[in-house]
Amino acid sequence: MKLRTAAVQVAGVGEKSSNLARAAGLVDRAAAAGARLVVLPELFACLGNGEVLRACAETESGETSEWAREVARRSGVFLLAGSYVERDGEHLFNTATMWDPAGTRLAAYRKIHLFDNDVPGAAFRESDTISPGQRRVTCVVDGLCIGIATCYDLRFPGLHAALAGDGARAICVPSAFMHATGQAHWEPLVRARAIENGVYVIAPDQPGRPDSALRCHGHSMIVDPWGTVLGQAGHEEETVIVSDLDLELQDDVRRRLPSLEHRRPDTYG
Amino acid sequence: MKLRTAAVQVAGVGEKSSNLARAAGLVDRAAAAGARLVVLPELFACLGNGEVLRACAETESGETSEWAREVARRSGVFLLAGSYVERDGEHLFNTATMWDPAGTRLAAYRKIHLFDNDVPGAAFRESDTISPGQRRVTCVVDGLCIGIATCYDLRFPGLHAALAGDGARAICVPSAFMHATGQAHWEPLVRARAIENGVYVIAPDQPGRPDSALRCHGHSMIVDPWGTVLGQAGHEEETVIVSDLDLELQDDVRRRLPSLEHRRPDTYG
Repeated sequence: MKLRTAAVQVAGVGEKSSNLARAAGLVDRAAAAGARLVVLPELFACLGNGEVLRACAETESGETSEWAREVARRSGVFLLAGSYVERDGEHLFNTATMWDPAGTRLAAYRKIHLFDNDVPGAAFRESDTISPGQRRVTCVVDGLCIGIATCYDLRFPGLHAALAGDGARAICVPSAFMHATGQAHWEPLVRARAIENGVYVIAPDQPGRPDSALRCHGHSMIVDPWGTVLGQAGHEEETVIVSDLDLELQDDVRRRLPSLEHRRPDTYG
Repeated sequence: MKLRTAAVQVAGVGEKSSNLARAAGLVDRAAAAGARLVVLPELFACLGNGEVLRACAETESGETSEWAREVARRSGVFLLAGSYVERDGEHLFNTATMWDPAGTRLAAYRKIHLFDNDVPGAAFRESDTISPGQRRVTCVVDGLCIGIATCYDLRFPGLHAALAGDGARAICVPSAFMHATGQAHWEPLVRARAIENGVYVIAPDQPGRPDSALRCHGHSMIVDPWGTVLGQAGHEEETVIVSDLDLELQDDVRRRLPSLEHRRPDTYG
């Protein structure tokens, strides 16, 4: 079995309506290329500082979710709508939602690890604005278990190991990874998560905007369970990369190199 | 504070006496370059199939250990003697030993994860011959906590996260990593372990021997906590790479990007 998958590289800076329109066009392009699962970046409709994030917060039935429901239905794809700022009572969350081709929300994942850092060019305290999620999330697409992680979560192998333990065959990592850290960290971390878990990793990132205070890294990637980079975008472009997830290849990798079965958590405690 | 460290790339195929002599010459070279900690590859004295490993097994006071004690003392270095096949009663272990400049054995680490795989060009069932270790190991070199992992252990981020949690500032990964897997996996995994744990990784590998049934990958590496490759050897050569571990740089990386403090094991269980 194969599942054709797309990672959409699109920017979320500036006007939400423009961002949603360009994202919809790229989802259409992915669907036209035969993609069954399309993954958008973190905060694809609205990326910015704390003030911007608070201003664009929505309830779970807000504009971005209704947009995602409609785009999934119209395009006939499973759509992982990277993330939006979810308002739930007093709290804001960085929430990714999965929609099926009927427009049903299958899952919502609230980002667990928040990006608090002081790296020049990437400095940000996400936790000043966003509350952390409390549980990991998988969902099922055409019978396949898919794990969800968001951007900074990429740095935490324990989360990905747990998703693989839950049965994930692919992990989607919608990101708005900073260029200042991405140059050194993006590719080795994306590839390592694929290799050490025998999973596909679908990692759409926001493109670099050299003139923006939030310059992302771009280089959206799809990596197979052997660690081979099946597709990778450039730094600045808005584009779509499309690759087939090949479950027979995955089964072969996992049979030949069964490191998932060799874990010794009794010695890690 | 800085700690000058060397990774020795040397082959363990063929005659043990020749391997020990060449390894001693390379340790001398590292010491002459000012290295305080010198790390040898996995099974640097004796690499081979199960029959070879059984034939070269030694007790903890055997030839390779006495050689390591004497080389550490003569060169005046801390020496991580990659590993040897340790016989303990009925069992054999793949054991790395750390020696101080006085010739005292500081630590012995028995490889936890055994390389059972069926990858073309790397197929091996280590567990047919070797018994697994049951606990992780750190030791102290000039006041610095150093973690030890061996080759296939590199694929298990949980072990490295635990070593970092034990206080490791550097993790040594003596290896005889196969070329068939190393081409795809060696560099991203070594770099990922450094990045995700904010540690130095010192990873000496055996060089490639294209005519050998066990063709290793070479490309011994020293990587800093930002993931920068400080030194990397070629594929086939026997050589030494030397780099300074800079604890101020490490403190700066860990302060600016404190992912070690952001782990959420409550969500991984």
